[in-house]
Amino acid sequence: MRQLYHFWLSPFSRKVRLVLAEKKLDFELVAEPVWERREEFLRLNPAGQVPVLQEEDGTIIADSTVICEYIDEVHNDAPLMGSTPVERAEIRRLVAWFDGKFNTEVTDNLLGEKYLKRYFAKGSTPDTGCLRAGRVNVGHHLDYLGWLFERRKWLAGDHLTMADIAAAAQISVIDYMGDIKWARHERAKEWYMRIKSRPSMREILADRQVGFPPSSHYADLDFE
Amino acid sequence: MRQLYHFWLSPFSRKVRLVLAEKKLDFELVAEPVWERREEFLRLNPAGQVPVLQEEDGTIIADSTVICEYIDEVHNDAPLMGSTPVERAEIRRLVAWFDGKFNTEVTDNLLGEKYLKRYFAKGSTPDTGCLRAGRVNVGHHLDYLGWLFERRKWLAGDHLTMADIAAAAQISVIDYMGDIKWARHERAKEWYMRIKSRPSMREILADRQVGFPPSSHYADLDFE
Repeated sequence: MRQLYHFWLSPFSRKVRLVLAEKKLDFELVAEPVWERREEFLRLNPAGQVPVLQEEDGTIIADSTVICEYIDEVHNDAPLMGSTPVERAEIRRLVAWFDGKFNTEVTDNLLGEKYLKRYFAKGSTPDTGCLRAGRVNVGHHLDYLGWLFERRKWLAGDHLTMADIAAAAQISVIDYMGDIKWARHERAKEWYMRIKSRPSMREILADRQVGFPPSSHYADLDFE
Repeated sequence: MRQLYHFWLSPFSRKVRLVLAEKKLDFELVAEPVWERREEFLRLNPAGQVPVLQEEDGTIIADSTVICEYIDEVHNDAPLMGSTPVERAEIRRLVAWFDGKFNTEVTDNLLGEKYLKRYFAKGSTPDTGCLRAGRVNVGHHLDYLGWLFERRKWLAGDHLTMADIAAAAQISVIDYMGDIKWARHERAKEWYMRIKSRPSMREILADRQVGFPPSSHYADLDFE
């Protein structure tokens, strides 16, 4: 069976889980304690990071974007990367936006301070400056997402693509923590309701991290 | 004429310049003062970062990896992205390694402290802890590069690929500042001599940043 080494609240792991689910590919999740830097895991990925995909034939693919492009190339019946170089460029630009800019400006500040710090730097409290920055920044990102969605059916055009998946992977983590004021972002909310109702999101919405419960509306398909 | 908005010592801009040169495509460099956040530039790339490519027909492509994949798809006579999904995955893994891990662990520490800080935070001095970390880390990265090069003709296999270009883009910036002790990294040095002698590297090796001269051996094809 195909295996995905992951970490529950990692948006990058979620991105790959969503792609595998969209493609209806079976896989087994292996929760990897990356902080232990297990030798066996470092042999799979010298970068020491999740996600890592191990195919049934032993092929190892590391890095979420690399895995997603690989899956889409090998299982290309419902393409998530568009059909022309210019379409792909727009999809990849938005993937880089959410994986890079959103992750640095929002997720690192909120997940980093509220969860990772608590777990890995026991006794230390979240930096309120980081929390404030993360909450302000998420608003700007949702405004941009809403602006795109006003002009398109999905974020990169007429179809669901890797851009929507990268965005959902990040946003679902922030929404798990209850850090989004949806009432202020009607357009972005419409987009999130649309992607939340896809079967590929079911497993993600069922995630529960022990000792760190989700916001009350996290799994609701309609929410405030 | 095709235009590339760039910044001289940005490894990401260099990556695109190298790809355009490898593909023998004409282009004009436009040095973009990203720190000014010019409205006209933000319309090209709302992320506000270089590089941005503007094609003659007006097509805008932002983000170095997106631009590189786009150029390789459109001008695919001498492919830099391999020919199978597994080859591409290995190439992309290494591109992500140099763009991400190397850039964070080495370039941000050295270029950030020695150049960007001097320029943008006038009066502040480089953090010696960061400089030390950058210099130690570059050694580990060159060891890994050497290990790959011992097993392969180029970093990702038998041919020059985007992996070599991403590595050369980062390493040329560090070597500009003289922060590599090449005598300790014979294998990596052989690889760097090989890529340095390619015509595509000529323009990069001719770069001179006003007030921030390169190391004495920066442009030499044989060096210590």
